[in-house]
Amino acid sequence: MNSHILRASLISFAALAVSVSVFAKEPIDPIAPVKDINLAQVELGKKLYFDPRLSKSGFISCNSCHNLSMGGTDNLKTSIGHKWQQGPINSPTVLNSSMNIAQFWDGRAKDLKEQAGGPIANPGEMAFTHDLAIDVLESIPEYVNEFKLVFDRDEINIDDVTQAIAEFEKTLVTPNSPFDQWLMGDKDALTANEKAGYKLFKESGCIACHNGPAVGGSSFQKMGIVEPYQSKNKAEGLSAVTGKDADRFKFKVPTLRNIEMTYPYFHDGEAETLTEAVDVMGRLQLGKKYTEDENAQIVAFLKTLTGDQPSFTLPILPPSTDKTPMPTPFE
Amino acid sequence: MNSHILRASLISFAALAVSVSVFAKEPIDPIAPVKDINLAQVELGKKLYFDPRLSKSGFISCNSCHNLSMGGTDNLKTSIGHKWQQGPINSPTVLNSSMNIAQFWDGRAKDLKEQAGGPIANPGEMAFTHDLAIDVLESIPEYVNEFKLVFDRDEINIDDVTQAIAEFEKTLVTPNSPFDQWLMGDKDALTANEKAGYKLFKESGCIACHNGPAVGGSSFQKMGIVEPYQSKNKAEGLSAVTGKDADRFKFKVPTLRNIEMTYPYFHDGEAETLTEAVDVMGRLQLGKKYTEDENAQIVAFLKTLTGDQPSFTLPILPPSTDKTPMPTPFE
Repeated sequence: MNSHILRASLISFAALAVSVSVFAKEPIDPIAPVKDINLAQVELGKKLYFDPRLSKSGFISCNSCHNLSMGGTDNLKTSIGHKWQQGPINSPTVLNSSMNIAQFWDGRAKDLKEQAGGPIANPGEMAFTHDLAIDVLESIPEYVNEFKLVFDRDEINIDDVTQAIAEFEKTLVTPNSPFDQWLMGDKDALTANEKAGYKLFKESGCIACHNGPAVGGSSFQKMGIVEPYQSKNKAEGLSAVTGKDADRFKFKVPTLRNIEMTYPYFHDGEAETLTEAVDVMGRLQLGKKYTEDENAQIVAFLKTLTGDQPSFTLPILPPSTDKTPMPTPFE
Repeated sequence: MNSHILRASLISFAALAVSVSVFAKEPIDPIAPVKDINLAQVELGKKLYFDPRLSKSGFISCNSCHNLSMGGTDNLKTSIGHKWQQGPINSPTVLNSSMNIAQFWDGRAKDLKEQAGGPIANPGEMAFTHDLAIDVLESIPEYVNEFKLVFDRDEINIDDVTQAIAEFEKTLVTPNSPFDQWLMGDKDALTANEKAGYKLFKESGCIACHNGPAVGGSSFQKMGIVEPYQSKNKAEGLSAVTGKDADRFKFKVPTLRNIEMTYPYFHDGEAETLTEAVDVMGRLQLGKKYTEDENAQIVAFLKTLTGDQPSFTLPILPPSTDKTPMPTPFE
């Protein structure tokens, strides 16, 4: 190795050591790159994620409510399901969702694979059945061949369908946000105002729940700790899963990654702006009334959590055949 | 120029002359590459094409019914509009639509730009107004800046919105189908069966209407020439535009490019398979009853018209701001 390269390497190593020690001090970690991925499953899962033939209507796909052009959400208060049914809850973002302690607001699915099967068979969402979805896929030779190549089984089953979708979803991480650049040692990545917002975010207690690489997603907390939360929404959260009265109104703490893109906010989608969401959270969860300036600083910090959005070629879906059951949107 | 290169060039030139003379003889032309495109408009138009905020619900975009993962259609008999309204007609493909004589089945829009404004303001489709769509776009700084850069005007107007969408749509061509490869001189690009289908397609008269680069799209023809077409669908075609009784049930001849992907068929979407569509067309338009083998040959030929699908990165949409009017899907 020549001495210039050696010196450059040593400097890089020193810089790395500094940045590691910097982010070791912070309660938020940079988003780690995706590793250990089955790329064949990802490519298959990407098609399934965009395929509305997994719904009764042939119109609704995973991407309808977790739109990857729009922060992995639909940006609606509550979602639109089969026959325009109004969903009961705000669609959480799929971005960085692999980091969640569990899936859905009430944590009723333990992981992305278990989650993926839910909406397909939910009468208020895609309104299909797993069996009918498999019938559709089995009628399409390109899918049959791809499943055989990827899973080495003669028949398509729902387990492999949800496994492939989940594997695709694991790739939907958003690294390289300004905040992560700052964590990694670029002191100019944040403005003074944004840094002040982060300081306030930590010192006033937001960080107690919104921490870790996803800045949330790692625990269930009661919505309305200091003051009760008033909502017309009927969701009761974790208690629907555990049956425990103590878990009423406990919801999974949402990730704050890409929060600028995932409006409106809360499980009921009632907070339309970050300003409103920060105000409500401060009062109800922390007993704090932020001044206008403080609120604006926290919002400025939150906007630094927008990372690189997943970038990929729109998948082309294999066409149906004469044997494929036709969708029945109006029945 | 050295003599080897000169000789290679002469051979290439001879090969080109042969291929030109080959496809000069055929009534179908290969799809030409896209030229003279305003790339800045294309990139802006791509975002608008995928943006459901151009609809009242915030849920329906151009891509909902002209899905570029699915041959530029929704693969439904008739489309789903605002509040799950059942559309009156089958969504035609957006692929190669720049080659159409006019837009919509009845030709009521003279070009893609005029077409693009229709669904946004149609109460049964996106159910918005042009003014409200502009309000949404004007509230999003990234759109404001991009429109200013692309069109050099201080305000966004609907004319520029539809211009950008149309410019994007002009790029949605599908060259390089097996049939085009054959037209260009690759004699092995089609099987004997597919060639027999093409011969039959020409000799039995399909080619009279389905010709040119789009294999259709260039004229209006009566649906049901030899025998009347029975349909529950109320669309009367061109007469709705011209007011002439002679134009009743005249529809724009659809392109047959990518026809394997754009099922179901006809303006009413009543033909679920190509086999059925070929049979009905033969009987009603040509007074011919194809045998099973003949039908299968024509279908085999039609499937050679599937070209390279448009390939691009899924656009990421700029987020709404606190000033952006919220969508109202359930009002």
